[in-house]
Amino acid sequence: MTPSHPKIEQPRLGEPYLLTPGPLTTSYAVKEAMLKDWGSWDDDFRAMTRELRSSLLDLLGDGADAFDCVPMQGSGSFSVEAMLASFIPPEGKALVLANGAYGQRSAQTLQYLGRDHIVLDKGDYLPPRGDEVARILADDPAITHVVAIHCETSSGILNPVEEISEATYAAGRKLLIDSMSAFGAIELRPSDIRYEAMVSSANKCIEGVPGFGFIVARKNELEAAKGNSHSLSLDVHAQWAHMNKTGQWRFTPPTHVVAAFIEALRAHAAEGGVAGRGARYTRNRDVMVAGMREMGFETLLDNRWLSPIIVTFFCPADEKFVFDRFYNLMKDKGFIIYPGKLTVVDSFRVGCIGQMDEDVMRNVVRAAKESLEEMGVTNAAPPLRALEERAKLAA
Amino acid sequence: MTPSHPKIEQPRLGEPYLLTPGPLTTSYAVKEAMLKDWGSWDDDFRAMTRELRSSLLDLLGDGADAFDCVPMQGSGSFSVEAMLASFIPPEGKALVLANGAYGQRSAQTLQYLGRDHIVLDKGDYLPPRGDEVARILADDPAITHVVAIHCETSSGILNPVEEISEATYAAGRKLLIDSMSAFGAIELRPSDIRYEAMVSSANKCIEGVPGFGFIVARKNELEAAKGNSHSLSLDVHAQWAHMNKTGQWRFTPPTHVVAAFIEALRAHAAEGGVAGRGARYTRNRDVMVAGMREMGFETLLDNRWLSPIIVTFFCPADEKFVFDRFYNLMKDKGFIIYPGKLTVVDSFRVGCIGQMDEDVMRNVVRAAKESLEEMGVTNAAPPLRALEERAKLAA
Ligand SMILES: Cc1ncc(COP(=O)(O)O)c(C=O)c1O
Ligand SMILES: Cc1ncc(COP(=O)(O)O)c(C=O)c1O
Repeated sequence: MTPSHPKIEQPRLGEPYLLTPGPLTTSYAVKEAMLKDWGSWDDDFRAMTRELRSSLLDLLGDGADAFDCVPMQGSGSFSVEAMLASFIPPEGKALVLANGAYGQRSAQTLQYLGRDHIVLDKGDYLPPRGDEVARILADDPAITHVVAIHCETSSGILNPVEEISEATYAAGRKLLIDSMSAFGAIELRPSDIRYEAMVSSANKCIEGVPGFGFIVARKNELEAAKGNSHSLSLDVHAQWAHMNKTGQWRFTPPTHVVAAFIEALRAHAAEGGVAGRGARYTRNRDVMVAGMREMGFETLLDNRWLSPIIVTFFCPADEKFVFDRFYNLMKDKGFIIYPGKLTVVDSFRVGCIGQMDEDVMRNVVRAAKESLEEMGVTNAAPPLRALEERAKLAA
Repeated sequence: MTPSHPKIEQPRLGEPYLLTPGPLTTSYAVKEAMLKDWGSWDDDFRAMTRELRSSLLDLLGDGADAFDCVPMQGSGSFSVEAMLASFIPPEGKALVLANGAYGQRSAQTLQYLGRDHIVLDKGDYLPPRGDEVARILADDPAITHVVAIHCETSSGILNPVEEISEATYAAGRKLLIDSMSAFGAIELRPSDIRYEAMVSSANKCIEGVPGFGFIVARKNELEAAKGNSHSLSLDVHAQWAHMNKTGQWRFTPPTHVVAAFIEALRAHAAEGGVAGRGARYTRNRDVMVAGMREMGFETLLDNRWLSPIIVTFFCPADEKFVFDRFYNLMKDKGFIIYPGKLTVVDSFRVGCIGQMDEDVMRNVVRAAKESLEEMGVTNAAPPLRALEERAKLAA
């Protein structure tokens, strides 16, 4: 089968592929869009900001009318903080659904903000389920908002946001989603999944370069957010009101990063939008996971929970396997992989997102095979302990 | 006299010069440095972060040892907020010296933070003087910190930070400086001017592209800042501690913007550092201001207060002068100028910073002359009211 997506560009000679969940490998055209300077006050740049906002809203599909898009300077975490501070009022209370580093970070952010919250902590990767959410909400009527992570990038799990949304609204509460690493490759249509606001950033599935995030929120929530923010810089309402009035960002925007993002958005549309992008990443994952499993590697997650964003593999039990060595051998072969974030067993992660297709993924598998050989590892099977850990998921 | 600075690059065909105080016109080499993707976790990028931090500290000259540099994602205002929140403890009280939009913004930030503060409001451009500061500090022993704007970019005035610093420390208080638009072109040596911390950003006098700011602060202040921040994202102590421990930014850095900045820092050093950069900008200003004055334009400020960063001109009294028309005529000729920010009389601003030299500035003057002719304005003299306004400065 020939791939249906537009041609994937190879990085220039000597540049490794970034098999990481952003910053990731972007196309040359995206980077080339940065070879110009813009005045942030000028009409030309205002037109770019308009295109950015409306193109992102288009990705919501039906029901997008009720939403608006507010780009925000800084990394993705800045947008998460901006969302939490703006939409959870000071007298609100949040339930944070955590199963990894990014859920924990949302909880930590609420701690800084002094917003009342409780955490459903599922450990390193177990998914928070709809019935658990329903139970907690029934027990605690003070909770006003649920905070969910769409793809928890620290394990790669795709959390069940549909059932979480249903449980949340069935109990009359509101949902905020951190869709940082998923938006643009996994549908998040308000007509399918109800929510008040979500965030993502420039350097994930849209395949731009890092430098800003964006908040997509219901207009009535944006209106109501006035006065909630703890921070001038991160005030979503103020950024939104100013942008709608003047067409400009409140403070200096990362002009070049915005230009790159607009190029990336056009390529995203040319690939068939969220469906097209998601299909390529899914194929990337399937080819890569199959090849790795053939060598004996095991994924942390069952297929049902694997995202097409990033996959966690257990480190092999063989003591000749040393992660730092493996990392460098892979890097020498042109692939930068990512260390794992599990607290219990050793692991590493391989990303499926960015300018890569299944041919690249076959080369990734080949590079992993060669690297194992160079280390003298003949079987990549994980230690028993890892498999016991994984069994918890099935239980 | 032939200019002593390295060759200035012209923007590519059809690209206007940005006579704005950042984003500004950067060299092609700076933008070309963005044609590559980096893994933010990788050694190569960590080395870049190290170079960025140490090169910035080098600009302080003698006494730099006592300081450290903490880059921060977001625009410059994010770094100002981070500085204010981190170094003014919750029980502190600030005196903000305001004579324009950026002083007002610092005061507004403190308002958000809930930090006690008073504002010495000097209006649109009058400089806050050392003796005034001394008087206020003597009257109010609760004040712990003074916040000063180095170059108040909204008028272009170079505020007298030396005498402000002397008054502050004579009274046993601490100084924080917003040197956003000045650092890198105007010396801010701790051996000459005492202060605890200052901020600037990537897209000002170092001539990088926008996407992050940086806080330069005494190490003992950084230590003491632990727990002060209202915000996870903007926590200077946490960013500093994490960076020193891991060599990485806490959250995804704007990798491409950082790469561009490192190229910009190298060019800055090649030009002779702060002295060389400042000399070129000063010459830019002198040539431009002389040419504009010849046409009848008047500057808001006396020569004594003119910065080599940006200059405010009064709009001509002639009613045939319409700013929007002038802006577009200048843009057609390849120059983007900046609207004024004075509240009392109409004005516009012309920046002197970025990849421009005196030859470019002569063309700016020529373009202004032609634009006036096209509008049928024969004399650029300002209305009497403007000159009366200016007389306040002399008084
Ligand atoms: C789910 C999720 N949330 C938040 C973040 C934080 O984004 P950033 O590193 O840009 O601050 C990430 C980054 O990978 C993420 O994957
Ligand atoms: C003195 C001063 N402070 C603060 C800022 C705000 O910086 P930013 O627009 O990057 O947020 C500027 C921007 O020009 C400035 O000149």
